[in-house]
Amino acid sequence: MQKPSIPKGTRDFSPIVLSKRKYILSQIEKIYQSFGFMPLETPSMENLSTLTGKYGEEGDQLLFKVLNNGDFIKDIDLNNVDSKKLTYQISEKGLRYDLTVPLARYVVMNQHLISFPFKRYQMQPVWRADRPQKNRYREFWQCDADVLGTPSVMCEADFINIYQQVFKSLNITDYVVKINHRKLLEAAIDSINASSLFTKITIIIDKLDKIGKEGVGKELIAIGLNDNQISELFNSLIEKPLNTESLNDIEQHFKGNQKAEIAIDELRKILKYANNNEINIQLDLSLARGLDYYTGCIFEVVPTSIKMGSISGGGRYDNLTGMFGLSGISGVGISFGIDRIYDLMEELNLFDEVKQNFTDLIFCAMDEPSFEYCLPLATELRAQNLKIEVYPQVSKLKKPLDYANNKQIKWAVIVGENELKEGKVMLKNLETGDQNLILKTEIIKHLN
Amino acid sequence: MQKPSIPKGTRDFSPIVLSKRKYILSQIEKIYQSFGFMPLETPSMENLSTLTGKYGEEGDQLLFKVLNNGDFIKDIDLNNVDSKKLTYQISEKGLRYDLTVPLARYVVMNQHLISFPFKRYQMQPVWRADRPQKNRYREFWQCDADVLGTPSVMCEADFINIYQQVFKSLNITDYVVKINHRKLLEAAIDSINASSLFTKITIIIDKLDKIGKEGVGKELIAIGLNDNQISELFNSLIEKPLNTESLNDIEQHFKGNQKAEIAIDELRKILKYANNNEINIQLDLSLARGLDYYTGCIFEVVPTSIKMGSISGGGRYDNLTGMFGLSGISGVGISFGIDRIYDLMEELNLFDEVKQNFTDLIFCAMDEPSFEYCLPLATELRAQNLKIEVYPQVSKLKKPLDYANNKQIKWAVIVGENELKEGKVMLKNLETGDQNLILKTEIIKHLN
Repeated sequence: MQKPSIPKGTRDFSPIVLSKRKYILSQIEKIYQSFGFMPLETPSMENLSTLTGKYGEEGDQLLFKVLNNGDFIKDIDLNNVDSKKLTYQISEKGLRYDLTVPLARYVVMNQHLISFPFKRYQMQPVWRADRPQKNRYREFWQCDADVLGTPSVMCEADFINIYQQVFKSLNITDYVVKINHRKLLEAAIDSINASSLFTKITIIIDKLDKIGKEGVGKELIAIGLNDNQISELFNSLIEKPLNTESLNDIEQHFKGNQKAEIAIDELRKILKYANNNEINIQLDLSLARGLDYYTGCIFEVVPTSIKMGSISGGGRYDNLTGMFGLSGISGVGISFGIDRIYDLMEELNLFDEVKQNFTDLIFCAMDEPSFEYCLPLATELRAQNLKIEVYPQVSKLKKPLDYANNKQIKWAVIVGENELKEGKVMLKNLETGDQNLILKTEIIKHLN
Repeated sequence: MQKPSIPKGTRDFSPIVLSKRKYILSQIEKIYQSFGFMPLETPSMENLSTLTGKYGEEGDQLLFKVLNNGDFIKDIDLNNVDSKKLTYQISEKGLRYDLTVPLARYVVMNQHLISFPFKRYQMQPVWRADRPQKNRYREFWQCDADVLGTPSVMCEADFINIYQQVFKSLNITDYVVKINHRKLLEAAIDSINASSLFTKITIIIDKLDKIGKEGVGKELIAIGLNDNQISELFNSLIEKPLNTESLNDIEQHFKGNQKAEIAIDELRKILKYANNNEINIQLDLSLARGLDYYTGCIFEVVPTSIKMGSISGGGRYDNLTGMFGLSGISGVGISFGIDRIYDLMEELNLFDEVKQNFTDLIFCAMDEPSFEYCLPLATELRAQNLKIEVYPQVSKLKKPLDYANNKQIKWAVIVGENELKEGKVMLKNLETGDQNLILKTEIIKHLN
């Protein structure tokens, strides 16, 4: 028999790992809810027509496609097909690649039922056929919140406050929120007279972290910029703490450029509305973000104590629903990468404080009458909101206590012939080893 | 542009629907946890070799298969292929069909890390390419709990108590837990000398609800039983409340059959261990359950006030992990069908009592200074565990109040020039229409 395995890039989440993940998700969910976001879930499979053409050509290749059911090659001419052509003939559905495109599709389909601004959060897995590597998986969770239907930059300010509260709740202290505005990037590229190369240039700038200034310079030359343009562009890629002064400096730098004025005006408002001194925000004009659809502010959160990619990102998009035929709906959203946040918290030992108990107390019975004596006691304690197990078999103490140790159960109640006769139980603290013979009615009193 | 849609048999869960579903899931999760079950999640995709051959031939056809990535037809001879043969050449992965086979696969892969008995719960979607119809979906949620590694029927008793507590917590009162034991079915079929037809007969008996006694009789004749055998078999398909008397009756009926004795002994213990008078348990020897792998007790829960299929099912299996090379691990588990429970609760109006509020209070600002005055107040109230929104734009009252009504927000705080001057706010109860001018520091006091 073949040894069982799971597909590359996917994971089982064992109870201990999953409890920690659920803890992260629940903190984020609570904070999203405190801002009035509502939950939404969309199907794992979407029609391929919904997904393709939204993530660039590379994205289309990374979609997991689901084979049509039934006799799927019946009417297909198998002469002269290649894999690419055949794919769309034998597959109509794909696994979702992110939560943003499904949101846009949902909003367009349900526009008449939705009262705008629509504030939704969504925490579900997504799938990408990327090459698996450290911190990169083929199935991973996203945790998004978006507001659709208002241009108000109060939403951006809310997201800054959400960042502060989420990371505070998780005890993550060393991080920076990088912020930029697409229109500042446009201004920078306009000012070197290269607007026609905007998309290409932003994709190259986005690699600054990976390939450095020199690498970026080479690629910019390759697409036709000259040395002057490149040095001027680098001059514009200012990185400063976001505050009144830095905004004044940037205004000075882009003096007279209308796009920059709009961006700076929005950033000033965001700074005022967020009104949050407890967070480190860096205005970073080299922040580009790969995705094409951003039109306003863009965010990225990067840990500072450990080298790791971003743990959250987001931004404003003016026309995402336009892809499905509904224009004029401006939106803004962020997404937390749960898998990276988990890895970060593990590395920083931040889960130590998270209480991990699956069972508060286990009953161990030495004989059949004691076993039957324990069962109703277990039911009573469960009614007191305790997590209670009865070791399912009459057994010598070693087995149930080994089990309890493995599961890190703090309390054991041991019952045998003697206890039974006296209406008592032996309550043992498995952390200290202390034990007390007590009345069966007094267990709960002794636990507190 | 094509109107966007979602694949047949899949659903978007809107905020209101999803909140109700989350409520059901959280109740079940809380109760699973109170019995010491630990959470587990497995990947959505499994290797096809893990999935195929586990659910019968029909099941294999209902698996959603995922197309291999890259140039998947490169080395494949497309002459003389049919869809079935080609499937396994161009697809190595499938979406999980249930949570039980992945559990068995997980336990075998991680057997050295697990301390048995292993109590896990798992709440995730599964996918089946069934023909979509009312109450049947292609993507739906299962909510399983299983104990692996002990033959103790205390686990069965625990599941009966879990049924009682889950349905009580959901206010579902009219239902019956049907229970049977595979060995009683074997005894009934042995007694008509038809053991070689066991699987076929159970599959036919399983249709009793759908096609009635007459239909079942016809099918039994078709596989070779005679009228005597059939009438004797029907005589054995006893249905009675599970209690000491009914068990005595059945013992009498199967007198001397060893399999029946084992089953009756287990049922007596389950009855004693569960010790639960608040639940309606029916011993139903016609309960067969489709799945082959059950070897002991089997359960099914059926609503009695509304005609609907089962809302939960389960049973004991002695060798599920054997499929993956690890034998000798007896297990027992149940599964709640969240989609049907949801539909049932909707029909019975049981969600009325479930509080649905996405936002407790909304701030409405009449001008920009008032808007800025509201923002820190919102932050303060969020810190008090309230769900707070600020309507993101300065606006006349109609728009924010329409929005608040649609979202069923109870409280609005209205601020304009006058309020601002006096350090006050107008607190309005949107349910009653009452409003009061109060100090901005006293909002929380007035909400309680």
